[in-house]
Amino acid sequence: MKKVEILSVGTELLMGQIANTNAQYISRRFPEIGLGVFYHSVVGDNPKRLADSLFIALKRSDVVVTTGGLGPTQDDLTKETVAAALGIPMVLNENCKEMIEAYFKNIGRDMPKNNYRQAFFPSGSTLMENGMGTAPGCIIETEYEGKEKVVILLPGPPKELVPMFDNCVLPYFKEKAEHRIYSMFLKVIGVGESKVEELLIETIDGQTNPTVATYAKDGIVTIRVTANDENGESPEALVECTVEKICAILGENVYARVDEDPEFTVFRMLKEKSMTMAAAESCTGGLISQKMTAFPGSSAVFKCSTVVYTAESKCKLLGVSADTIEKYGVVSGETALEMVQGICKLSGADCGISVTGYAGPTSDPGMPVGLVFIGIKCFDCEKVHKFIFNGNRERVRTLCAVNAYDLLRRAIKASDNKG
Amino acid sequence: MKKVEILSVGTELLMGQIANTNAQYISRRFPEIGLGVFYHSVVGDNPKRLADSLFIALKRSDVVVTTGGLGPTQDDLTKETVAAALGIPMVLNENCKEMIEAYFKNIGRDMPKNNYRQAFFPSGSTLMENGMGTAPGCIIETEYEGKEKVVILLPGPPKELVPMFDNCVLPYFKEKAEHRIYSMFLKVIGVGESKVEELLIETIDGQTNPTVATYAKDGIVTIRVTANDENGESPEALVECTVEKICAILGENVYARVDEDPEFTVFRMLKEKSMTMAAAESCTGGLISQKMTAFPGSSAVFKCSTVVYTAESKCKLLGVSADTIEKYGVVSGETALEMVQGICKLSGADCGISVTGYAGPTSDPGMPVGLVFIGIKCFDCEKVHKFIFNGNRERVRTLCAVNAYDLLRRAIKASDNKG
Repeated sequence: MKKVEILSVGTELLMGQIANTNAQYISRRFPEIGLGVFYHSVVGDNPKRLADSLFIALKRSDVVVTTGGLGPTQDDLTKETVAAALGIPMVLNENCKEMIEAYFKNIGRDMPKNNYRQAFFPSGSTLMENGMGTAPGCIIETEYEGKEKVVILLPGPPKELVPMFDNCVLPYFKEKAEHRIYSMFLKVIGVGESKVEELLIETIDGQTNPTVATYAKDGIVTIRVTANDENGESPEALVECTVEKICAILGENVYARVDEDPEFTVFRMLKEKSMTMAAAESCTGGLISQKMTAFPGSSAVFKCSTVVYTAESKCKLLGVSADTIEKYGVVSGETALEMVQGICKLSGADCGISVTGYAGPTSDPGMPVGLVFIGIKCFDCEKVHKFIFNGNRERVRTLCAVNAYDLLRRAIKASDNKG
Repeated sequence: MKKVEILSVGTELLMGQIANTNAQYISRRFPEIGLGVFYHSVVGDNPKRLADSLFIALKRSDVVVTTGGLGPTQDDLTKETVAAALGIPMVLNENCKEMIEAYFKNIGRDMPKNNYRQAFFPSGSTLMENGMGTAPGCIIETEYEGKEKVVILLPGPPKELVPMFDNCVLPYFKEKAEHRIYSMFLKVIGVGESKVEELLIETIDGQTNPTVATYAKDGIVTIRVTANDENGESPEALVECTVEKICAILGENVYARVDEDPEFTVFRMLKEKSMTMAAAESCTGGLISQKMTAFPGSSAVFKCSTVVYTAESKCKLLGVSADTIEKYGVVSGETALEMVQGICKLSGADCGISVTGYAGPTSDPGMPVGLVFIGIKCFDCEKVHKFIFNGNRERVRTLCAVNAYDLLRRAIKASDNKG
């Protein structure tokens, strides 16, 4: 397997101003095409330290991907430093010069002189267009200590890096690959990672093509199925055959066959069915609403929500009966049910979520932190689910939101089967 | 300046399952005590590659902080690998053995045999207690190529790493430091970073003790003032003198003198004054509520909120008049005002926030994406603020929330001055 190293350049990373989400993104995507990331490194905007780090990377890795330092300012020195270290001259790219000039014309500003630097590239490198900014990336095929190496320079801002990686870097490696590789993701809620592995052991044990990898985060298990065509078989067919087997075993617990979050699956379903939703949140405090409204176009499916943190507001805004709260408590299945009934009535939405629970660190006497009731209503069907989640406040809130969307997905699906 | 390198160990980082937030946290804190982070590196759970990376780090840095690989499983090999690389034998720490045994007794489980490995440490190292788990950290003072080096081993889970870093690592370096160092943070909203630098230039130009560093993120400018006692002066007095000068220049725009987010400042103010708040959110979609309710104890200050994504729900839940929406539009100062009036009336809260705007990517004809009206009510004082924010949907929403809390802070402060 080819070894990849990600070499990130930027003082803002070393000052802790931002987390290295670029390295995370790239690391997550490379295995899909059969490449493995073996090292990350981060260095500041300093030519000597950058060159030294590049040599370390070239010594131990086959592919070095740099991120950052392609901008127009004095600090941005990745291209020049890498070219000098590799002994490659910089040359002006006329197309690129025109593109940058056009960019500034388009936004109605004069082009600063510094931006001309962005049109110079290591001789013989392949440019990658930047749809989101003025700094193109490039791919350099070179030799180091007698071995073939690929050095890829990407811009630092994630909104520029992500499309360039998807549209240029992945296709480059797919084309170069000895074997065609295909990956699919399955997303699972309702079965833990070790249980998933146990259930799948007969299907995947000893299997090398496709390979199946699992990982778990925030109550979601992600399964990646990757195949190549080294036996002359179609990798798509190999992957799909294994995916069908896995889906047959895990059933309804598979919420998506693409790498997406459960709220996005619900968003897609609601849009397809022209349905609307609403939410009544207590311990999640707005998290459920925030996740759905993060999607452009969510106003078509999301009507409204209330964050009812006090017993009084549960009664006043949602019409929960004071008797119910008195008799069963604010954290109870009965209250959750009246909350979801209330928000659906108030909003006129087709379906709704309610959550009431103890996110911690404290709870009422005799009640465990993490005790949560989730109410789900989809047309006439109403149901309350009880959970006891482990973890701190942040984790309990996250698990509430993840499971609430998963339960709503199942309810929408069930209403479909009935209709 | 001593050079620090952070060497993170963990396949989950190289698979992109998590971002390296440990490296970010450590990098952010070291400059407070006069240490600079020059390199991050990440390597998988592989002894050979870990040892090689350690040698690279020891060659170029004075302090190496490893994160991860201290757990009880076979994969966890940081301690053993580092000790072997440095030629230091592993010895059993009896205290630690008892502590781990006590931990398991306390949670009512039998201690797995593997956990005994966690009681072995490099001979001569100083242990750091882990209040949040079973893996203690340690500090190793050693030599490499004739130079003094410090190697610090920290656990991977952030909830274990952060307190260990704060309670053990920072005090260790403070005590060892040739000079006593003191830092303070000022947090600023309402003035951009370049304007802050321009305003402060006369105060900070050419000054080396204290030093003043600024950085900007999500509409917030953070200013760090750091001084040492090399001239025999008190670093606290030096810092405070500069802080006073900066506060005199930036005035009300300084929202805190500690490194906290604006919603936490508001949370503290509300608690101190026994006041309550509520929110009516449109384009922020629950973000404002979610930020406040993330704090344990927020139920004492946060009454409720509504996320009113449709015009209909604005009228129905908050009593916004249909005439107002018809005449001025859902995104208008008039609607924002009625929204904040409505939520305060409905909830009985002392103060409130409302937000209505275009988060993008689309807006109504003739209206710019990023146009936002924020309504603030604090007792009898009501005001609406208009913004046009730049950026994508996520950024516009974040800037809305940051500015809404800052405006509420100013309103609470103003009500104070009147009272």
